[in-house]
Amino acid sequence: MSDMTETTPGWLTTDDLEQARARMPILYVEAVPVRVDDSGELTSVGLLLRMGSGGTVSRTLVSGRVLHHERVRDALMRNLEKDLGPVALPRIPAAPQPFTVAEYFPTQGITPYHDPRQHAVSLAYVVPVTGDCRPRQDALDLVWFSPQDAVSEAVQSEMPGGHGVLLKQALAHLGCAV
Amino acid sequence: MSDMTETTPGWLTTDDLEQARARMPILYVEAVPVRVDDSGELTSVGLLLRMGSGGTVSRTLVSGRVLHHERVRDALMRNLEKDLGPVALPRIPAAPQPFTVAEYFPTQGITPYHDPRQHAVSLAYVVPVTGDCRPRQDALDLVWFSPQDAVSEAVQSEMPGGHGVLLKQALAHLGCAV
Amino acid sequence: MSDMTETTPGWLTTDDLEQARARMPILYVEAVPVRVDDSGELTSVGLLLRMGSGGTVSRTLVSGRVLHHERVRDALMRNLEKDLGPVALPRIPAAPQPFTVAEYFPTQGITPYHDPRQHAVSLAYVVPVTGDCRPRQDALDLVWFSPQDAVSEAVQSEMPGGHGVLLKQALAHLGCAV
Amino acid sequence: MSDMTETTPGWLTTDDLEQARARMPILYVEAVPVRVDDSGELTSVGLLLRMGSGGTVSRTLVSGRVLHHERVRDALMRNLEKDLGPVALPRIPAAPQPFTVAEYFPTQGITPYHDPRQHAVSLAYVVPVTGDCRPRQDALDLVWFSPQDAVSEAVQSEMPGGHGVLLKQALAHLGCAV
Repeated sequence: MSDMTETTPGWLTTDDLEQARARMPILYVEAVPVRVDDSGELTSVGLLLRMGSGGTVSRTLVSGRVLHHERVRDALMRNLEKDLGPVALPRIPAAPQPFTVAEYFPTQGITPYHDPRQHAVSLAYVVPVTGDCRPRQDALDLVWFSPQDAVSEAVQSEMPGGHGVLLKQALAHLGCAV
Repeated sequence: MSDMTETTPGWLTTDDLEQARARMPILYVEAVPVRVDDSGELTSVGLLLRMGSGGTVSRTLVSGRVLHHERVRDALMRNLEKDLGPVALPRIPAAPQPFTVAEYFPTQGITPYHDPRQHAVSLAYVVPVTGDCRPRQDALDLVWFSPQDAVSEAVQSEMPGGHGVLLKQALAHLGCAV
Repeated sequence: MSDMTETTPGWLTTDDLEQARARMPILYVEAVPVRVDDSGELTSVGLLLRMGSGGTVSRTLVSGRVLHHERVRDALMRNLEKDLGPVALPRIPAAPQPFTVAEYFPTQGITPYHDPRQHAVSLAYVVPVTGDCRPRQDALDLVWFSPQDAVSEAVQSEMPGGHGVLLKQALAHLGCAV
Repeated sequence: MSDMTETTPGWLTTDDLEQARARMPILYVEAVPVRVDDSGELTSVGLLLRMGSGGTVSRTLVSGRVLHHERVRDALMRNLEKDLGPVALPRIPAAPQPFTVAEYFPTQGITPYHDPRQHAVSLAYVVPVTGDCRPRQDALDLVWFSPQDAVSEAVQSEMPGGHGVLLKQALAHLGCAV
């Protein structure tokens, strides 16, 4: 998952977050940005291109923490805007039911998901976006892939920590052959 | 459910449909038209006002048959356009998973749903609409209700055949208090 | 929600929990215990009878925190055993998709759910149980209700904090008339 | 899908079924039989081994038509018993919401699913079974696979018509890496 240190006053300091991470699961939301046609059918999937600490390049989904006193749908909005910019025009789902719950453990092998920093539990949603996406923060770019390309080995190999698995689950939920 | 006789050439004649109805379940789609705010939260629910054969007035959801060789999402599009007009701008769900499956039996009491004409099995979806709704066909009007008003006894009593139950299930799926 | 202070060594102290509650959403699981017949159809719903601090009696669902490094399904198991005893034989869902996500805010009116102690986000599941339920901890009893009785005003009035709403959402998800 | 001609008196004759198949979508249910552990986690997937008309061997899921005046859950029960025998002890889902809806078209390429005989629309469910499975009818055997083996190319190549895709979608819904 992307680095989640929030700098908004009143939220957790980095120290507080470190402490919390050692003691309880941290709640996240994740969004798979998609383009759909008029009949709602998936046409392409958006993946963020990020530069890792060691110069490695990886592709990720939109993700971030749910803050104290923040609704899940507001956390989705905020993280989509953080990662896709202010004019992406995301269509936040009307229903709170996620397509899956991804559990990231600091220990590998318990689930398909892994986050060395923490135990994170992530509510995952598919979010159609209709506007212009202009990645901000630490993302280099947002690239749109056909569903077929998105599940190719080349792309999957650039999605560590189980994000490739989560992407495939999203596509399966949408009725795609994965 | 609304009267479903399709007059498009190549589809079932009324006789064929009568025959099929006596022999197998008929596949329907149903859509609950909703307005949502920018965060995806439900603000109002649209109900069609129909005049029944005996002069009785009832409120219904958008519904109609899935035709031979028609995708479920195309059946949703077609029936939404039939009932809400060409500029309702419905957002057909990206995923095929319905929020429920409503089973209408010609015999009362087997399920909460009842259709004296047939055994119909209906895939039910919530569909946000953003454009202008201009009911066509046999509907008199489309009226937008707050979630609270939509589940009031007055409105529920005008939704026979289990449509009131289906509406409540849709609202429950959206996280509303019903 | 029931009082969640965990006394297992190695988990949060009461102080730590208080501190975390003021700073981030706390992840919960909730289970609606049900009896089903051979065809999977709901026959009754189990509600825990609890004595509140002021001597008031309330009815609740099974609920509890997800602990650090604990899978959601293990949290479900642990909390079901805590509330229903060791021989309830719950059938934990195979899929991680909850039927809804209930967001309890310390402030009233943001969602239908309210918890004065904390911001809790709860993954809600329906869990068929087939064994004997022997409530432990602070629950006085587990009482089985027909779906009709469970949504009656009498029972709903004994389910504060939005638990009555969540119960209705569970029944709606199961296809019941609520 | 397996051959669906029903011989029960009172249902469709083969001629009637042929006629209906040319005119409207036929409603099916499909079940992915699974073994789960006490925490509900998937351990293995059951696939039926069938001998095709040309002597080819294929692997399929449990599937069959929904009959006139039959509930979806009763159709699931009947088809599970037909394919797995009388003591498989399937746990029919309590909720009517399928994990997906698979649309089989007689024309290839419209969806990932294909059935040369008909336009079939199939409600797909994951069904844990706890008893002994003794395939009947035209199935040679039921073989249990680990999730990893079930999505291997060897097994997938034996699942024509999109059944391999549906199996992967089921596993994705269960939180597996596919």
